[in-house]
Amino acid sequence: MAPSAGKASKAPASPKATAEAAPKAAKSAHPVSPLAPKALAKLPPISGVRLGAGSAGIRYEGRTDVLVAVLAPGTAVAGVFTTSKTSSAPVDWCRSALAQKSARMLIVNSGNANAFTGRVGTEAVRATADSAAELAGCKPQEVFIASTGVIGEPLPVKRLTAVLPEIYENTGATAWEQAARAIMTTDTFPKMATATAQIDGEQVRINGIAKGSGMIAPDMATMLSFIFTDAAIPPDVLQALLVQATETSFNAITVDSDTSTSDTLLLFATGKGAKHNPVVRANDKRIDDFRIKLTALMQDLAVQVVRDGEGATKLVRINVSGAESTAAARKIALSIANSPLVKTAIAGHDANWGRIVMAVGKSGEAANRDKLSIKFGGHRVATMGMRDPNYSEALMARYMARPEIEIDVDVGISKFNSGVWTCDLTHGYIDINGSYRS
Amino acid sequence: MAPSAGKASKAPASPKATAEAAPKAAKSAHPVSPLAPKALAKLPPISGVRLGAGSAGIRYEGRTDVLVAVLAPGTAVAGVFTTSKTSSAPVDWCRSALAQKSARMLIVNSGNANAFTGRVGTEAVRATADSAAELAGCKPQEVFIASTGVIGEPLPVKRLTAVLPEIYENTGATAWEQAARAIMTTDTFPKMATATAQIDGEQVRINGIAKGSGMIAPDMATMLSFIFTDAAIPPDVLQALLVQATETSFNAITVDSDTSTSDTLLLFATGKGAKHNPVVRANDKRIDDFRIKLTALMQDLAVQVVRDGEGATKLVRINVSGAESTAAARKIALSIANSPLVKTAIAGHDANWGRIVMAVGKSGEAANRDKLSIKFGGHRVATMGMRDPNYSEALMARYMARPEIEIDVDVGISKFNSGVWTCDLTHGYIDINGSYRS
Repeated sequence: MAPSAGKASKAPASPKATAEAAPKAAKSAHPVSPLAPKALAKLPPISGVRLGAGSAGIRYEGRTDVLVAVLAPGTAVAGVFTTSKTSSAPVDWCRSALAQKSARMLIVNSGNANAFTGRVGTEAVRATADSAAELAGCKPQEVFIASTGVIGEPLPVKRLTAVLPEIYENTGATAWEQAARAIMTTDTFPKMATATAQIDGEQVRINGIAKGSGMIAPDMATMLSFIFTDAAIPPDVLQALLVQATETSFNAITVDSDTSTSDTLLLFATGKGAKHNPVVRANDKRIDDFRIKLTALMQDLAVQVVRDGEGATKLVRINVSGAESTAAARKIALSIANSPLVKTAIAGHDANWGRIVMAVGKSGEAANRDKLSIKFGGHRVATMGMRDPNYSEALMARYMARPEIEIDVDVGISKFNSGVWTCDLTHGYIDINGSYRS
Repeated sequence: MAPSAGKASKAPASPKATAEAAPKAAKSAHPVSPLAPKALAKLPPISGVRLGAGSAGIRYEGRTDVLVAVLAPGTAVAGVFTTSKTSSAPVDWCRSALAQKSARMLIVNSGNANAFTGRVGTEAVRATADSAAELAGCKPQEVFIASTGVIGEPLPVKRLTAVLPEIYENTGATAWEQAARAIMTTDTFPKMATATAQIDGEQVRINGIAKGSGMIAPDMATMLSFIFTDAAIPPDVLQALLVQATETSFNAITVDSDTSTSDTLLLFATGKGAKHNPVVRANDKRIDDFRIKLTALMQDLAVQVVRDGEGATKLVRINVSGAESTAAARKIALSIANSPLVKTAIAGHDANWGRIVMAVGKSGEAANRDKLSIKFGGHRVATMGMRDPNYSEALMARYMARPEIEIDVDVGISKFNSGVWTCDLTHGYIDINGSYRS
């Protein structure tokens, strides 16, 4: 074992034991994003879910950095994870645990990603699962684990396991905001959403929390999101619903084109509030309303992630139509959304459709230059291969001053469309990411 | 014809005729890049090449914005262009003209890209070619044309054609620096390189100029580069040499991942200094030295483009080894080079190898997480799936303060490698691109 691993395993459980391993003082928080929702959603209890948050002092002092969710026996689980080839130890663990199709606990820490930490990282995950399983009286494989924070630093796992019993003892049905806050890293506001849906005329609830900010790009888009419902839906159906809803929500957002090694989306169904008859198939019409509400809730959370994009001052929706296929439309939309030149132009209130043309061109997908049409906020600025005759710089300047921008691009090839959300690229992004570790 | 086209064709030849169409005053120049070469290269004359620069006032007053190069009869030409699906009218023209395999003139304007300008754009190119051909007494198809600047604005072509006769009359053999300056847009220094090569023991010369700064990504990387040699090399051989040398030069650099609609690289061979025997085949060993010198000159120009990346404070070389194929190595290198999180970390003097791991992972190419090795400046920071035991934050901090950073990544799969140059992402980039049109 390499010395650095040994060093980690010798790390003291107490956050104050050595100067070298001591956590840094909490950074002065970045100001809340100007795009934050006006009010936080109020999440009701979900039968079968208890939540608690606490401080392990893994990275910062003076803030919560651990979330514990306790799930009723029989809870079904579905998951979607980063496509990164260098996924973190917790992601590997969850992928494997998902085969059990049953969840009893969720443990999240927001101080350390436990990614690229080798064998000691795998051991830290196992130690976390063992500690949690002992508390809940379940199998370690029923404990789902997520980590976010710095990559490559050994996780001082004893600090984490040391605080689990106290947090576990204090879990309750109402700590949704505390839960959402405990998973934040550079997020400037907690991300929550709630919805009700009907199955067989019976009401079921869905609550979700998320964190994001940097390294936000498909696939997966958000770093971490956890969704809970009291509906009774078997794991296979739950997985199909989750994958489908992800396409137009978390996989339709991008902040900086970077993809985390830790992206994790988990959906838990306790079945404890369910008075409906059993659901068997993913295409069952009886869950159409659930499917719609789940997708809307996930879009809500995904857009909240973009609203908190590092340094973001504008929320941008890009709709691409007239493409050769849905995949082509999506690729063009992402090419526009990820273009630094497009993003800086929007930050500068510049309806620079020339850069949109550039981004369409570099996507590599078919586009008819002489039929290309571009609108900002419904105002056509380019048409038939040139600037629109009615283009008004003054009108555009007024529109571009808004906090929410909508761009429609028709590439004039066929009938397929797709859309993504993104944000602008500002000095704030450079500030936050040029000094993240310092 | 759309009204905007009509408006453009009615644009007066004089830059001062109307308020609406009047050029803007020259922007206060950005300070010269801290990465600029200490001294500008001195380019000798090339037999068969005459150069001149002038001001058409297309976008800015008080600076040159037109380059005219006059080439001896019999000059061979090769070209590589943007892969953008929305390429500009001048790029379309050059692609078509290349079929003639003969060049007599090169006309470049740096005020307006003449891209996404519809039929009026095509007409502007044709008018430019006609005017130039009349001066040189050649076919319009022997006139090569390049434009750079704002996209989507009609080019006031009469301003351009009005100044061509005077510039043509004043062309000379020594105006290399004037030529390099006339093609600049947001560049902070002119980019030039010169080399000599041996063919059959006879010396031939190669001179090159380039401009870049923003929208720099493969393929093609530079916005504009023009290379001239007095060697006698037939067009087909010239084209093969150019394509080959582009792979490890202009196609191995990236500033912001964006790709211009106007990227143009042209290589002209006048044959006027040639005492060597005719070259017939691209794989002729007699041109090995020429191939090597041409590639080195193009790498020199390409790296100068990166040194002038918008807002750049660091030149970064990324070498990827151990990949499944050369293409995989290249994709991983570009994924690292284009990652906003990697680029902002480097700007912040942060040897954040965790973000390198992230970028390797998101490339989608095979990488063995447990064999991955990362070095900064030859110092190993990560090995065997975790932080190197000898990692020294102090040593890294000293290294990262340097203006030139080298990162080696071995992904532990096979034996293939590739490398790219890039720069960091700073507040300067946001400043320049958030207000480019204003």
